[in-house]
Amino acid sequence: MSIITLTTDFGLKDHFVGALKGKLISTIENPTIVDISHDIDLFNTLEASYCIAASYNNFPKGTIHIIGVDSEKTQNTQHIAMQWEDQYFICADNGILSSLIQKKIPQKVVAITIHDRLQEEATPMNVFVAVASHITRGGLLNVIGKEINELKVVNELTPIVSNDASFIKGSIIYIDQFGNCVTNISKKIFEEVAIKRPYTISFHNKKLERIHRYYSDFKNIDKYSLKTFEGNALALFNENGYLEIAIYKSNPKTVGSASTLLGLKFRDVVTITFNE
Amino acid sequence: MSIITLTTDFGLKDHFVGALKGKLISTIENPTIVDISHDIDLFNTLEASYCIAASYNNFPKGTIHIIGVDSEKTQNTQHIAMQWEDQYFICADNGILSSLIQKKIPQKVVAITIHDRLQEEATPMNVFVAVASHITRGGLLNVIGKEINELKVVNELTPIVSNDASFIKGSIIYIDQFGNCVTNISKKIFEEVAIKRPYTISFHNKKLERIHRYYSDFKNIDKYSLKTFEGNALALFNENGYLEIAIYKSNPKTVGSASTLLGLKFRDVVTITFNE
Amino acid sequence: MSIITLTTDFGLKDHFVGALKGKLISTIENPTIVDISHDIDLFNTLEASYCIAASYNNFPKGTIHIIGVDSEKTQNTQHIAMQWEDQYFICADNGILSSLIQKKIPQKVVAITIHDRLQEEATPMNVFVAVASHITRGGLLNVIGKEINELKVVNELTPIVSNDASFIKGSIIYIDQFGNCVTNISKKIFEEVAIKRPYTISFHNKKLERIHRYYSDFKNIDKYSLKTFEGNALALFNENGYLEIAIYKSNPKTVGSASTLLGLKFRDVVTITFNE
Repeated sequence: MSIITLTTDFGLKDHFVGALKGKLISTIENPTIVDISHDIDLFNTLEASYCIAASYNNFPKGTIHIIGVDSEKTQNTQHIAMQWEDQYFICADNGILSSLIQKKIPQKVVAITIHDRLQEEATPMNVFVAVASHITRGGLLNVIGKEINELKVVNELTPIVSNDASFIKGSIIYIDQFGNCVTNISKKIFEEVAIKRPYTISFHNKKLERIHRYYSDFKNIDKYSLKTFEGNALALFNENGYLEIAIYKSNPKTVGSASTLLGLKFRDVVTITFNE
Repeated sequence: MSIITLTTDFGLKDHFVGALKGKLISTIENPTIVDISHDIDLFNTLEASYCIAASYNNFPKGTIHIIGVDSEKTQNTQHIAMQWEDQYFICADNGILSSLIQKKIPQKVVAITIHDRLQEEATPMNVFVAVASHITRGGLLNVIGKEINELKVVNELTPIVSNDASFIKGSIIYIDQFGNCVTNISKKIFEEVAIKRPYTISFHNKKLERIHRYYSDFKNIDKYSLKTFEGNALALFNENGYLEIAIYKSNPKTVGSASTLLGLKFRDVVTITFNE
Repeated sequence: MSIITLTTDFGLKDHFVGALKGKLISTIENPTIVDISHDIDLFNTLEASYCIAASYNNFPKGTIHIIGVDSEKTQNTQHIAMQWEDQYFICADNGILSSLIQKKIPQKVVAITIHDRLQEEATPMNVFVAVASHITRGGLLNVIGKEINELKVVNELTPIVSNDASFIKGSIIYIDQFGNCVTNISKKIFEEVAIKRPYTISFHNKKLERIHRYYSDFKNIDKYSLKTFEGNALALFNENGYLEIAIYKSNPKTVGSASTLLGLKFRDVVTITFNE
């Protein structure tokens, strides 16, 4: 069984996603197709990268991830296919995959070279489907591309650790459906730098002194009803291991959210300062 | 073949739904996954309950419904799994299932107790996927939970029948994509109380004297083109057997809808008065 | 394996699409169900027709397309099933299929006549699912309907070629997620009329002298970075062979799009004038 995920900025109103699935079904035998998102902000490669990073490891080995965001091949941007952590990723070399793998070394990356074997008007999706089909048949990446050693790095947005390890300075890289603001500060880097020291998380003029283990992990919940805590700001490491600033029981459309109530925006700075 | 439906407030932009499907695919062999809705109003258990109520009986016996709305386990809210009408329902005990089954008796309900068998940071979805997987392997609910006899009742919103059976007083429980306003007055209760008496449906200062059998079921359609009736208010029992106030050929974005034109909102009262 | 596509105006928030899929799964063995769109503008048969036209030929022979837009059966509108280009299309005879096939002759069209065999309250979707199920079992269209020779023509919106072949006058029939404006001028009609003559594309007070082969197909891209061209207007034949007016790297929510920046709306005129 071939598992293929799709992450695009095609939206769900137009026929684009349906057409892409038609191509996949016509080319690959009985594929299992899973939508990650089709509402990536248009041409926003950083958002695409976050969505893939946050979901790929829920899928089994051999899964093929097709990413259709800013996917036109240009003079400076090749189409690439990458094998990494025993999964496959197909997209344009526009920063999505370099943001995904950070500094880790992929098993293989090739610049796709089959364009001249397809019909003249082949779209990027035709190319990606042909590559996916090749992989599902057990084909090697070298057959459809030329090995490359470096991915294009774009939109570098990584947290900074001060030389004396007194603070980590990160930024908001994604705001989700609940208005929760995800930073690029990973649990791993936090634990390495913190070495169990006390800390303060700050952004704008707000401070948080504690990281929740789960959303409703408030103190004194024996004394007060959980309802009392609705609307409270909190920080926690989300399922993907990134520090997130959230509002308990937020709703961007009604009561507000971390983004609206705390004024946090894409790319805003969040700092963790260590107190000892 | 295992059939699993998903009803959540996760939205379709973020990776949450894709990640959940990845977990299901990784755990259960070749599942058929069907989305009911991922746009439930955030934390709105009543809306979630309506969506499940309106769709579950389209699915075959043995279908597993996972409901991810307000699903965090707290001191007062357990994770539960229920067998009812030969289907399975997995969610938090936050009123969704009690609203769904009304006063009917389920085949079995358990409070899920496997949390300590999962890894420390297991999310509610990890728990629900593990339970679903157990069920698809033919496992009994007692193995993953402790039987309970009562579901938590929240957001009680049921129609009232007057003592002399002169009226039924219901409320709007859902407003759909067409702006049609669904009440909690079922065809069953209507027929029991009406005993074929004439009636008037009223809300705000508007009255309707007739229930349509289908949307275009207007009188005198031999004389006039159906186009003449566009914009007319009407009442009918929808496919799920609930009284619905609708506008013929409504469009909330252009010509308006029952919700916008008649000023009907969530929880507004709709009364059926019997005239004899 | 039965492949069934869905194109509706049901939206994704309500349970309608999930319920329809439940009916399909309950009736047809292991169907592959693909969503084309559920966000067709309400009752907009022209939009539905465009979405189907733009996607159907990505699917294999034998695919069944169910179209749930303005699908109520009325005195003047029958339910129909059509075999065309070795695929099947099921919907109401409201102009969707006549717009789709233009003047081409389908293999077979029937007015569906099974309504009295279904339960009294069968919805259009119950009817369409029953027909789809019949087709997947290898049944003939004549068994579930009565052959008809003509489709209802509604919303005629076809390009006009002047008698002296000096211009083609088309109109915007669809605006997509990127704000790109698709006209009804096909590459085929353009090439037949142009016979390689130079031309000017005009709309409102804007002119374009060139049709791009792909979005980033600008002149002088050796000299300038592609970034320089962002925001430029361009024309190209899209994947479905229709002339499209686009803005390079448009985003309706941020930098603007062909629709917002050029003021193009649904049904606006686009003319190609031949200069010799």
